[in-house]
Amino acid sequence: MVSSKALHMILFVQSLILLFALRRMRYTGELVLRHAQEMTVNHPGEKQPEIHLRNEVLTMRPIYVVTPTYTRPTQMADLTRLSNTLRLVPNVHWIVSEDRVHISKPVQQLLEHSGLSYTQLAAPRPASLVGKVIGRGVFNRRAAIAWIRENASEDGVIYFADDDNSYDTRIFEEIRQTVRVSVFPVGLVLRYGVSSPIIENGKVVGFFDAFQAGRKYAMDMAGFAVSVNHLLSKPNATFPARVSYLEEGFVKSLEVPVTELEPRAEMCTRVWVWHTRTEKAAKPSLENLKEADYLAYSNTNLEKLHKHLLEDSSADKPTTNMP
Amino acid sequence: MVSSKALHMILFVQSLILLFALRRMRYTGELVLRHAQEMTVNHPGEKQPEIHLRNEVLTMRPIYVVTPTYTRPTQMADLTRLSNTLRLVPNVHWIVSEDRVHISKPVQQLLEHSGLSYTQLAAPRPASLVGKVIGRGVFNRRAAIAWIRENASEDGVIYFADDDNSYDTRIFEEIRQTVRVSVFPVGLVLRYGVSSPIIENGKVVGFFDAFQAGRKYAMDMAGFAVSVNHLLSKPNATFPARVSYLEEGFVKSLEVPVTELEPRAEMCTRVWVWHTRTEKAAKPSLENLKEADYLAYSNTNLEKLHKHLLEDSSADKPTTNMP
Repeated sequence: MVSSKALHMILFVQSLILLFALRRMRYTGELVLRHAQEMTVNHPGEKQPEIHLRNEVLTMRPIYVVTPTYTRPTQMADLTRLSNTLRLVPNVHWIVSEDRVHISKPVQQLLEHSGLSYTQLAAPRPASLVGKVIGRGVFNRRAAIAWIRENASEDGVIYFADDDNSYDTRIFEEIRQTVRVSVFPVGLVLRYGVSSPIIENGKVVGFFDAFQAGRKYAMDMAGFAVSVNHLLSKPNATFPARVSYLEEGFVKSLEVPVTELEPRAEMCTRVWVWHTRTEKAAKPSLENLKEADYLAYSNTNLEKLHKHLLEDSSADKPTTNMP
Repeated sequence: MVSSKALHMILFVQSLILLFALRRMRYTGELVLRHAQEMTVNHPGEKQPEIHLRNEVLTMRPIYVVTPTYTRPTQMADLTRLSNTLRLVPNVHWIVSEDRVHISKPVQQLLEHSGLSYTQLAAPRPASLVGKVIGRGVFNRRAAIAWIRENASEDGVIYFADDDNSYDTRIFEEIRQTVRVSVFPVGLVLRYGVSSPIIENGKVVGFFDAFQAGRKYAMDMAGFAVSVNHLLSKPNATFPARVSYLEEGFVKSLEVPVTELEPRAEMCTRVWVWHTRTEKAAKPSLENLKEADYLAYSNTNLEKLHKHLLEDSSADKPTTNMP
């Protein structure tokens, strides 16, 4: 049996240990939390120079990426690789606007699977313009603009990104800095192989583009971005239904003088977006199965494969999915 | 002063508390770790369904993605979007093999900027085949195979991914499960709009492909994957220099009977890779600057822009960058 004094001592020492243990527990928690974030963000196989930590992402201005699209054999392939690129860009809201009466189910499934924040719109051209070139990309872009006017965050930026273009992720960080209207070069445009604003002494003085034709803003659709704030200040800004003059008409309606456009991408000396075009491709069909003499195809995977490929049950209503 | 007995009691109770505190500390640490990973993985703007945790990635089999490529106006655009897709796939080593005497600097810069683990090879066709169709994609694929035989991890998987195809990230998780040779459908191939193995009772019994021409393995280059282990067991496996018979020749040399090929992508009922082709585009040139009457272009951004676009200082040696 130890003395009462010794017991007091032991009790005191043990209390101290308990106190330190509790403080240590708290400190360890914080350390592990910090360490785990670093680990997860930087793990091998997903080294991403532009990856951002949670707090940084939350304070970033949102980018509203508007993609007009239409049903065709290469659509899923093009939208898939664009979605892959957008998954690398923080704080993007993807507005996919279809030239259709109802939104399509395969596109909806793709959007859901991407994990991106998105809005899917259906905005067909008027019946009188169906099959004509004149309505192409006009009414679905207008629908996206209407959605933005109603729903977008005022500090956001809008970018029109066609589904078959190619994007270096750096272009999105340039876009994010737009005050009113920012401009930058686009590769693979027409005969010159590039379209770019001409910059002299830090200001836009004109446009190097193979298609001038009296255009004041001779740019490609992928060559500019506009802030939501600025769009809201121009209630009449819209796309005209005039072939080859979509960019010209829209940028004009934004009422920013050429010299006040904001040159980006290292003063318009870098190409970080390309106007690529995907070659047309053949549509799968049940006729091919018959022609190829696979009459017994219903006992194989080919029936289900074609069911998936030909699936286009239209969904009814526009959908939005924001986290 | 409390009694010795009471002190003993207090000491005993305190010991119990200390014991529980220590166990609790351990449990909290684990909980915080798990919670922090979930938080980081799911933060907004980067929601990625396939994102994997560190430990999971480290035990994943590596995928060696072989991309043969050649210098052309659309090359940077195509490689950029492929690199974006690969950045989403854990544990990829990208082997970019150029049909050139020296590796090109723009491709090298792209690879470096991607943050991916990569190897850049230069493997020109023999002088006698320059300008002919027959050597296309043969010698640079062979160089990649030679590199793999020397350097690859034995538990890896090899996939031949052309730079202008489109990939759903799900296809890579299918590829990763390859035992010897796995096969799956490819979209947008030739007249049928798809190329697919035909599966009956879970086994490959033939191929649905518009180009049969006596091929035993009528597949697209993007429609199969082979394990490193199996390749190593076939020291003579290689690509033949025979137009349109690259897949046939290579898969034949792997010596796996058709019925023993491993069907993937939900028993070959899903298309998660497309044989897209990028339309040819014009090359930028200084002539265009002159033609467009921008004689004063040297005072503007256009000179530097074209310097970047026309840059193709060849780098000397193949490079590898593994983290």
